[in-house]
Amino acid sequence: MTRLEQQMQFILEVDRLKQIVRQTYLSGADRKENDAEHSWHLAMMACLLGEYANEKVDVLHVIKMVLIHDLVEIDAGDTYAYDQAGNETKRAREVLAADRIFGMLPKDQGAELRNLWEEFEAGKTPEAKFALALDKVQPILLNDCTDGRAWAEHGVRLEQIQKRNARTPEGSKQLWEFCEALIERNVEKGRIRR
Amino acid sequence: MTRLEQQMQFILEVDRLKQIVRQTYLSGADRKENDAEHSWHLAMMACLLGEYANEKVDVLHVIKMVLIHDLVEIDAGDTYAYDQAGNETKRAREVLAADRIFGMLPKDQGAELRNLWEEFEAGKTPEAKFALALDKVQPILLNDCTDGRAWAEHGVRLEQIQKRNARTPEGSKQLWEFCEALIERNVEKGRIRR
Repeated sequence: MTRLEQQMQFILEVDRLKQIVRQTYLSGADRKENDAEHSWHLAMMACLLGEYANEKVDVLHVIKMVLIHDLVEIDAGDTYAYDQAGNETKRAREVLAADRIFGMLPKDQGAELRNLWEEFEAGKTPEAKFALALDKVQPILLNDCTDGRAWAEHGVRLEQIQKRNARTPEGSKQLWEFCEALIERNVEKGRIRR
Repeated sequence: MTRLEQQMQFILEVDRLKQIVRQTYLSGADRKENDAEHSWHLAMMACLLGEYANEKVDVLHVIKMVLIHDLVEIDAGDTYAYDQAGNETKRAREVLAADRIFGMLPKDQGAELRNLWEEFEAGKTPEAKFALALDKVQPILLNDCTDGRAWAEHGVRLEQIQKRNARTPEGSKQLWEFCEALIERNVEKGRIRR
């Protein structure tokens, strides 16, 4: 197989990301979002909101990270944020997926994407902290503008959201403050449980 | 409205791109692709296939261009490649859409995205030529691996594909050669009309 054939096989394989459904509802349609749509949305946000990162970030690096951050879910599936049992086995399932999926690429590119994914998961660099913040902010925006539907359906409690977002302000204090107001509004409306 | 509120309104507005359906079928699902999924897929390709651009390209610039290249379709809709009547009014509809959609952003960012879109449409810079090539190559990959379904459903002729791809080799001779083999295979199978 040539290098190009290997890359094309990977590009066709990741088409499956469009079938991995998340728990967030779209703003104007009665259906849930999939991972490819979500990843595109995060990349758009990375283009526009870099000025709110706490630390200066390399935008290309953030974009690449958000584009690939959910590829492991092609094998491992989407684990809902508030699914405790699922989250206990998440890492092991996702590492296996990363081995297989990034392993389809030529070595240099496979290593680059694998490193980007590990960097995102570790959340230690300025770019990873910002990418993680975007990944948390985006569903809050969509949940708020769909009248808190996903939160209400899952009976999510304020405390769970706060715990899950413990590190969001590390990526962007300003974006987190924006979200806090949306969360508060949904607590008042009873869409998030106290 | 603060700068951040303006940006967030835009980010919510473009959520609608997920509802603009194209004519291409997904590889493993019985449904058509939408513009957000398509744009994510092109951005992934831009990350991995830059080495095949005829001229050296700035990858971040290509990625930004493909992320936003279809936003005008939120208002103007997707015009199928081989819909002649639709293509006659396309530019006028899309310019109105660009005015409204990019006009939602703070001036500096609205101008940046508008310029990216105009650059893509004009197809003159190395980045625009490569982005245009990716935009043509991606549906060919998907059409081939879905047994030419979209081509067959629309009764597309080889000549139409060749005409539509007249400029694809300007972006990437190598990617176009890869596609030519796929197209030939579908002509032989009778999925593309001679």
